Amino acid sequence: MSDQFLEYVEKHQEAFIDRLRKAVAIPSVSSDPGHRQDVFRMAEFLQNELKALGADNIETRDPGMQDFNGQQIPLPPIVLATVGNNPAKKTILVYGHYDVQPALKEDGWSTNPFELVEDEQQRLIGRGSSDDKGPVLGWINVVEAHKSLGLELPVNLKFCLEGMEESGSEGLDAIIYKEAKGYFADVDAVCISDNYWLGTTKPCLTYGLRGVSYFHMTVKGPARDLHSGVFGGTVHEPMTDLFAVMSKLVAPNGKIQVPGIYDMVRPLTEEEQRTYDNIAFEMHELHGAVGNTTNIHDEVRDVLQARWRFPSLSLHGIEGAFYNPGDKTVVPAKVIGKFSIRTVPDMKPEKVTELVCKYVNDEFAKLGSKNSLEIKCSHAGNHWLSSPDHWTYVAASKAVERVYNVKPDLTREGGSIPVTLSFQDALNKTVLLLPMGRGDDGAHSINEKLDRSNYVQGTKLLGAYLYEVAAAKAE
Amino acid sequence: MSDQFLEYVEKHQEAFIDRLRKAVAIPSVSSDPGHRQDVFRMAEFLQNELKALGADNIETRDPGMQDFNGQQIPLPPIVLATVGNNPAKKTILVYGHYDVQPALKEDGWSTNPFELVEDEQQRLIGRGSSDDKGPVLGWINVVEAHKSLGLELPVNLKFCLEGMEESGSEGLDAIIYKEAKGYFADVDAVCISDNYWLGTTKPCLTYGLRGVSYFHMTVKGPARDLHSGVFGGTVHEPMTDLFAVMSKLVAPNGKIQVPGIYDMVRPLTEEEQRTYDNIAFEMHELHGAVGNTTNIHDEVRDVLQARWRFPSLSLHGIEGAFYNPGDKTVVPAKVIGKFSIRTVPDMKPEKVTELVCKYVNDEFAKLGSKNSLEIKCSHAGNHWLSSPDHWTYVAASKAVERVYNVKPDLTREGGSIPVTLSFQDALNKTVLLLPMGRGDDGAHSINEKLDRSNYVQGTKLLGAYLYEVAAAKAE
Repeated sequence: MSDQFLEYVEKHQEAFIDRLRKAVAIPSVSSDPGHRQDVFRMAEFLQNELKALGADNIETRDPGMQDFNGQQIPLPPIVLATVGNNPAKKTILVYGHYDVQPALKEDGWSTNPFELVEDEQQRLIGRGSSDDKGPVLGWINVVEAHKSLGLELPVNLKFCLEGMEESGSEGLDAIIYKEAKGYFADVDAVCISDNYWLGTTKPCLTYGLRGVSYFHMTVKGPARDLHSGVFGGTVHEPMTDLFAVMSKLVAPNGKIQVPGIYDMVRPLTEEEQRTYDNIAFEMHELHGAVGNTTNIHDEVRDVLQARWRFPSLSLHGIEGAFYNPGDKTVVPAKVIGKFSIRTVPDMKPEKVTELVCKYVNDEFAKLGSKNSLEIKCSHAGNHWLSSPDHWTYVAASKAVERVYNVKPDLTREGGSIPVTLSFQDALNKTVLLLPMGRGDDGAHSINEKLDRSNYVQGTKLLGAYLYEVAAAKAE
Repeated sequence: MSDQFLEYVEKHQEAFIDRLRKAVAIPSVSSDPGHRQDVFRMAEFLQNELKALGADNIETRDPGMQDFNGQQIPLPPIVLATVGNNPAKKTILVYGHYDVQPALKEDGWSTNPFELVEDEQQRLIGRGSSDDKGPVLGWINVVEAHKSLGLELPVNLKFCLEGMEESGSEGLDAIIYKEAKGYFADVDAVCISDNYWLGTTKPCLTYGLRGVSYFHMTVKGPARDLHSGVFGGTVHEPMTDLFAVMSKLVAPNGKIQVPGIYDMVRPLTEEEQRTYDNIAFEMHELHGAVGNTTNIHDEVRDVLQARWRFPSLSLHGIEGAFYNPGDKTVVPAKVIGKFSIRTVPDMKPEKVTELVCKYVNDEFAKLGSKNSLEIKCSHAGNHWLSSPDHWTYVAASKAVERVYNVKPDLTREGGSIPVTLSFQDALNKTVLLLPMGRGDDGAHSINEKLDRSNYVQGTKLLGAYLYEVAAAKAE
């Protein structure tokens, strides 16, 4: 890799921060129709940056209209761009998003969320700094450095930038599948920088995500809500049945009680066990994130395995019951219990649904209630597991060593990033998750930040990764 | 009793309906500050009616200000009035309320809720017709009839009319206790017409109400709401613990699982058992009210006993959990389960709280969770049981026979009417619940109605009751 590139990044970091400042100043909140024009402005900002840096091709795709509570509003464009068209080089597809979570000073921010501020600890504070404007601009910084230095990029770079990630990526999947044999036809691997280091000190590469199956359990009883004074003791109350069944799903120690679930979980081999030995994570980091010591496991390895490679079941709430402060003596006529299961290899979503439905129906039948129960899976997103031996991971690992002088941790995550699976399935290419920010960036919280060093070193890392990719021998 | 009185009521029913029409036209919704002036207007309407009929004394008591979400708004007055001051006569205190439940045409009313309309089945439809403007005006009709006929009332009548009954009777109790030895000092018995016949065909006298103890069970875990993807399987989830404990409170067949609760319930004697033999109530009435056949018991006697004389426990909801439509993968950090127990003689609220708290804490301890649980009783209203052998009940029973040619059913109710207990405790006098409307009047629903016959015969009944009281030998 060219040392010129690393030097350029180091020397021009103030300009890169200015670029991030301009991006943060555009409140591209995708969940608020009142900010939709800002999301469009943000798309234009990125196109202008790419144009100024001489991208070979910039196009947009229109995902159509969004139905927002009956109001039809236009979805922001998917921005596609290409830098370099050399058939002798590999092509890396970079995905990122230019919309952000909502943020209001009144939520508790110490500064105006849409004004990038650097504090004494050299943290760049502002909404979108880490999620995901910093990483997206990191790639653009790489392009700028090469153009300024008169260097060609070592690979062909393709961008796919969306503006609805924080609002369900509406319309994205269709375009990914449509362009798989079109705009994305020559892609060799996909790189996504939209997650975080596990902790705060050591970079990581992420090769796995849990899936999620979400369930709605509806118990219907009386034809209308009843007064508990008049009817208490005389009718089968849906809430009683709902609690009876939902309480049987998971034990207080987190063990899922649905028979057959753990039979599908890939056994933990000694080899995999060893991969947990040197992960940079300590119990105090979990305590800090949770805010106290209500953790189930006391060993780091058990915590990480519980988060990454074992399923979990959480009860989220009830629709149709009383939820306000105060006292209300209603007997709700129809209640919908919500819960979800985080899934891991080799759990099949259809089989999970089958086991859950059978168990729930069996448990309900035992109650002898005259009410009715209906259980359905409202959403099933599969887990994702990539191979850290693939050349794109090896290249990223070398790039981390080059920039950070440390071997990255190989991590998985407990949550899901659906676009990862979409790219893998649509393009049939390996996807790498290469985070720029730290585990404490507070992506969806107040005072979201990206450390200056993560932004600067992270820009170097993205560039270094492209050089290692170019040097790697593809399989 | 004077036949003239009965004839007068029969002949002047259109004028009485006009009076009710005027009252219904005043939308005295106490829960809506925007209607507070209408509640005051309604108080003036009643005072003017009483003044025009020559009441001996009309006073008001000011309950002070109401804190409505931080806004201070004046509470409507308690209207006190006296008709007759003869120390040789008994004095009956009549309680009623002049405020109403909210009502909007858009809620599904077939007519404008604040315009009294008589339909083909001679039902007087309008908000407050049955709850409680009809009964309050029934008493005023009685006064009018006597004044017009030049007759003295057979007893002294005292009125206590409030305008906040549908909003927790704020300020009333203090005034009742204050006036117990003042305005109400010479009262011999209290009569409240603010409930309903059990069914639709037969009048009843009500001599018992269940109490209610309301509980808040708080489970606290992590310091903040967590993402189930990142934390599922690694922390003790408050929802899991809450469901585990709340599911142990009551069985699907309605049996309370808290040890010791049933030990406090007064045993059912053969004598009491017989009082259920001839109550005018049929299973189809329960099915109609519930909207289907999700009833627990199949015999009328069991249904009525479950409603009136046995306790019940209902789960109402959860504060702090996800309650909207759709999917949300939150792990709530702090959840408050709400449930209540309907209490009956001889359950003591303090003992109920003690048993519930012990049981809940014991069950929580079994879970081995690191979360914390706190249980408290937020409200405890005692049950009420009067004696149907008391002269005021005997008088009311004779009055029913005179007007309806049938012996009334002696009923209890499953809900609570707190003012009943307040009057009994503050004045140490027997309270009679003497309903005017039918069980299907829909007091808090759309299309609230009072049948013309119930209004007219009910007015006769209230007058006849006063004559029977006068004739009765007090103990």
